[in-house]
Amino acid sequence: MDYLKLFESIVKKHSFLCVGLDSEIDKIPSFLLGEKDPIFEFNKRVIDATHQYTIAYKPNVAFYECYGAKGWSSLESTVNYIKARYPEIFVIADAKRGDIGNTSKMYAKAFLENMPFDAITVAPYMGEDSVSPFLAFKDKWVVLLALTSNKGADNFQYHNEDGMKLFERVLSVSKKWGTINNMMYVVGATRAEMLIDIRKIVPDHFLLVPGVGAQGGSLEEVARYGMNKKCGLLVNSSRGIIFADNGSDFDKVAGEKAKEMQQEMEKYLSEKKLI
Amino acid sequence: MDYLKLFESIVKKHSFLCVGLDSEIDKIPSFLLGEKDPIFEFNKRVIDATHQYTIAYKPNVAFYECYGAKGWSSLESTVNYIKARYPEIFVIADAKRGDIGNTSKMYAKAFLENMPFDAITVAPYMGEDSVSPFLAFKDKWVVLLALTSNKGADNFQYHNEDGMKLFERVLSVSKKWGTINNMMYVVGATRAEMLIDIRKIVPDHFLLVPGVGAQGGSLEEVARYGMNKKCGLLVNSSRGIIFADNGSDFDKVAGEKAKEMQQEMEKYLSEKKLI
Repeated sequence: MDYLKLFESIVKKHSFLCVGLDSEIDKIPSFLLGEKDPIFEFNKRVIDATHQYTIAYKPNVAFYECYGAKGWSSLESTVNYIKARYPEIFVIADAKRGDIGNTSKMYAKAFLENMPFDAITVAPYMGEDSVSPFLAFKDKWVVLLALTSNKGADNFQYHNEDGMKLFERVLSVSKKWGTINNMMYVVGATRAEMLIDIRKIVPDHFLLVPGVGAQGGSLEEVARYGMNKKCGLLVNSSRGIIFADNGSDFDKVAGEKAKEMQQEMEKYLSEKKLI
Repeated sequence: MDYLKLFESIVKKHSFLCVGLDSEIDKIPSFLLGEKDPIFEFNKRVIDATHQYTIAYKPNVAFYECYGAKGWSSLESTVNYIKARYPEIFVIADAKRGDIGNTSKMYAKAFLENMPFDAITVAPYMGEDSVSPFLAFKDKWVVLLALTSNKGADNFQYHNEDGMKLFERVLSVSKKWGTINNMMYVVGATRAEMLIDIRKIVPDHFLLVPGVGAQGGSLEEVARYGMNKKCGLLVNSSRGIIFADNGSDFDKVAGEKAKEMQQEMEKYLSEKKLI
């Protein structure tokens, strides 16, 4: 899937919503716990109820990994299900990997070859040769951490050298490693005004924006400061959608929450004359 | 396991060797491929042949994860085997994880609670609240990336602000997040002379040093510049030991290679009057 295909999907669905599948077993409806694979069953119902409003899903790998081999199976079943049923939807492994070259190659194989993820989130600290093995997979994407939505982002990401903050340096240096067709960036919504300066460095790249909803970021501000002429945004919401309700209709409620976000997104896309 | 226990183990075995279990299936002896779990079988034999020269093992999680749920089982079997058979040996999950708080907590659970790892490698980019969930586990350690051994380390880790390089800032800021009993740092051996300045910032912390052997670092230089009064070093070797031979005696050869390193380490410990 390339840049234009992503934009086509946005135009078709009037949405730039990414649903985060942070499917913690303690939070899923208790009536699902008797299923053979409760996490997959939960995901399946959320996916079936939200897919029409969604252009991307983002399973958070930690929430699968913490159940060992069994959790890994739930993750595999989830991405396989999405790709079999809704092949046009972009699926991101939120894994925050990154290591020396021969090791990154193995992580890339795990997510981009052995599982049909379209993209994986990668941490930038170890530099180019820790990122490039992920870029070697055709039609697959790296989503590189630039500015994260947590408090700890202040510890290093804002540090300044020669008038450039570390996250700006990450954007500026790393954009040469790939293209707008295989790299995008994580930029937290809790600092939406930073998008103005970020768009000066990466005007065309897609940005994956977490932190809207539970973490306090505003969709309106993200759209105002971050949208470019091909939208260039995937805005993620996890808990606000998938755990909106835990009764027998949880999937229906998740669908409604996704629809609400999609309708707000439609408004911003329309104001920008992209649809 | 705390700082002094690690030092006791070093004094007892006259070694500060960590054996990296980067157990790639394409490189393990072909006669093992018929086993039910070839990777675990390979690790078991390497462990049995090297444990007397080794104070730590470091499975590289990517090399397990790339085989999905099955690889995850091999990883679980490996750490369980070490802890059941050689409980005094320190076991590090080389996983380079790190995410927002609720997600890091899940990664911590995966490795430090559901599996009996003593430690996990963590990436610093997202700051304190991405690291602290790992430090909440009693008697467990974070091994934080500071200066890595790869070429890409130059992209960001050396960048200077107010006379301090980024990796120095990582050391200086993060050492307040934990103690010498639950934090150590990755410092690549390919830049051994940097250990002089690093020891000014973290004189007492343990350092996990990769890059000796296959990546070109010198054990002698690491010992000269990095050893402190409680040794303070775990030097890792992976390929140089575990893939030294691929015949039927591969484990015996791995044991000999580990012994060679242990003997060189004994010399440096003795010169420093630590044994």
